[in-house]
Amino acid sequence: MSKTIEGIANIDGKIQPLGRAAVPILDHGFLYGDSVFETMRTMEGSPFQFLKHIDRLFHSAEGLSLKVPCTKRALRDEVFRTIKAYYKKYPRSELYVRVVVTRGYGDIGFDPKLCPRPTTVIIIKKYRPLPEKFYERGVEVAIVPIIRNHPQALDPNIKSGNYLNNVLAYMEAKKRGAYDAILLNEEGYLTEASNSNLFLVKNGIVMTPSIESGVLKGLTRAFIMEVAQRHGMEVQEAKIKETELFHADECFISSVLKRILPVTRCNARAIGSGMVGVTTKKLMKLFESEAAHDTQPLHFVLRQGEKHCSLS
Amino acid sequence: MSKTIEGIANIDGKIQPLGRAAVPILDHGFLYGDSVFETMRTMEGSPFQFLKHIDRLFHSAEGLSLKVPCTKRALRDEVFRTIKAYYKKYPRSELYVRVVVTRGYGDIGFDPKLCPRPTTVIIIKKYRPLPEKFYERGVEVAIVPIIRNHPQALDPNIKSGNYLNNVLAYMEAKKRGAYDAILLNEEGYLTEASNSNLFLVKNGIVMTPSIESGVLKGLTRAFIMEVAQRHGMEVQEAKIKETELFHADECFISSVLKRILPVTRCNARAIGSGMVGVTTKKLMKLFESEAAHDTQPLHFVLRQGEKHCSLS
Repeated sequence: MSKTIEGIANIDGKIQPLGRAAVPILDHGFLYGDSVFETMRTMEGSPFQFLKHIDRLFHSAEGLSLKVPCTKRALRDEVFRTIKAYYKKYPRSELYVRVVVTRGYGDIGFDPKLCPRPTTVIIIKKYRPLPEKFYERGVEVAIVPIIRNHPQALDPNIKSGNYLNNVLAYMEAKKRGAYDAILLNEEGYLTEASNSNLFLVKNGIVMTPSIESGVLKGLTRAFIMEVAQRHGMEVQEAKIKETELFHADECFISSVLKRILPVTRCNARAIGSGMVGVTTKKLMKLFESEAAHDTQPLHFVLRQGEKHCSLS
Repeated sequence: MSKTIEGIANIDGKIQPLGRAAVPILDHGFLYGDSVFETMRTMEGSPFQFLKHIDRLFHSAEGLSLKVPCTKRALRDEVFRTIKAYYKKYPRSELYVRVVVTRGYGDIGFDPKLCPRPTTVIIIKKYRPLPEKFYERGVEVAIVPIIRNHPQALDPNIKSGNYLNNVLAYMEAKKRGAYDAILLNEEGYLTEASNSNLFLVKNGIVMTPSIESGVLKGLTRAFIMEVAQRHGMEVQEAKIKETELFHADECFISSVLKRILPVTRCNARAIGSGMVGVTTKKLMKLFESEAAHDTQPLHFVLRQGEKHCSLS
């Protein structure tokens, strides 16, 4: 087997090294991708928008009629406990945090009653930012022939363990020499990148595909919209035709891990000037300065040596 | 954790009890459902249409640009070796066989290069047929609002670890008191049940949704069509409107595990006479008598005490 990956895992409360942490093959998360997840990162040591992610995890679980086997507070405390275990073994750094809740262990079959109890997995590892030059020069995307999952087939707002639609789109983009894919919906409207929301800027207006287009209600997407509006920019959510991407002045994609990542080329053609645009740059700056307000005060726990994880 | 499930697993050649056989949480089969699988069963001790299933597994893998890490022959031998290990521990019975190949172990991310080697999992457990009364009386299905995955989003002909579309449809049918779901495609045409192909009989003609409708090219479906034609029945593959299900004389679903399972009600309304129809009964009989020709001679290996698994 390949080299072990560093980090800490917590499976149903059992903290262990990430590299060999395992789940039964009869876990329905493995058999069917029957699971939900959230990805988070810390900013200056504190999980960014942590409670919003936990809320969304519960929302995704509801979409699958999956009952998360603990309260939001208990789950948060468990994440903090796992972070502490990480810091006992590894030096301080910004962290990648992934929480997965699966249907659980049970005999083969679709009936959820086969699984008496969901499995909870927490993964903590070092957060590795993208190379700085990606942010300075922007990246290239490719519009791929793979269309985004239809909301009535598998709602993109359920962040589930069924990610092949995204994986296939990503692989297709890589084949075309691009950094990431842009997926259209079955009507030909823009949706999102393989794992990020999509934004266009045209005549100073910040535009993003509406939720009805079949996109994830990204937390970073919402944060960017809020910040842009607070600073007097016009923001539009709409069904956006593929061609508008080529006629946009600027473009960027957003996710909790990437934040705002400028996109300067699509299908080997320059978008606007082919350089990172002024509105994108402004939003990147505003994002960094305002994001700090939206973190949870984990640093109180971790930096000032408190014994308990629970926060007021 | 719930009670252990009996059976034998083989993970990358390591034979072990099924109940606690495990894969790393960093296996992309667990993280993203990035895997392919096949389900088989034995008939009188021999895997039914075994080589066709192995072919289809390789075809599914190709659809994900996933290279199965062994030859078809080696995989077949490995399944036979696992069956032998099962029989060392458990009494003779018909068997359920599941083969899964995942993207493998690797750091979190969509890039398949993160996973140097796919993981191969073989599951052998006792085959448990459905209750006989299901075949005598037929079952009820419900047309659910969940639509089948669009072939351009995730091709139903890739049997993958992304089964939430099917699981959600199944759960929805159960809520409505039905045995299984029938999914429509985005255009409103009939596709298939949550895990079985669909057949209608109208005026003696055997009809099934065409592959273009977005259905799995089921091996049992193909076998039924072949048997029906060989016995002089007219068989049609077509795009079939939802309403035709209610106006059909007979209906049944098919899969390797269920074979031909009569459907006598849909959305709480009788189909045809509400009883198992004559054509369905005839096909059920023909299926049983002809299926034996399509098994692999595993019984030579298992019954006559040969040392080697390899077949000529």
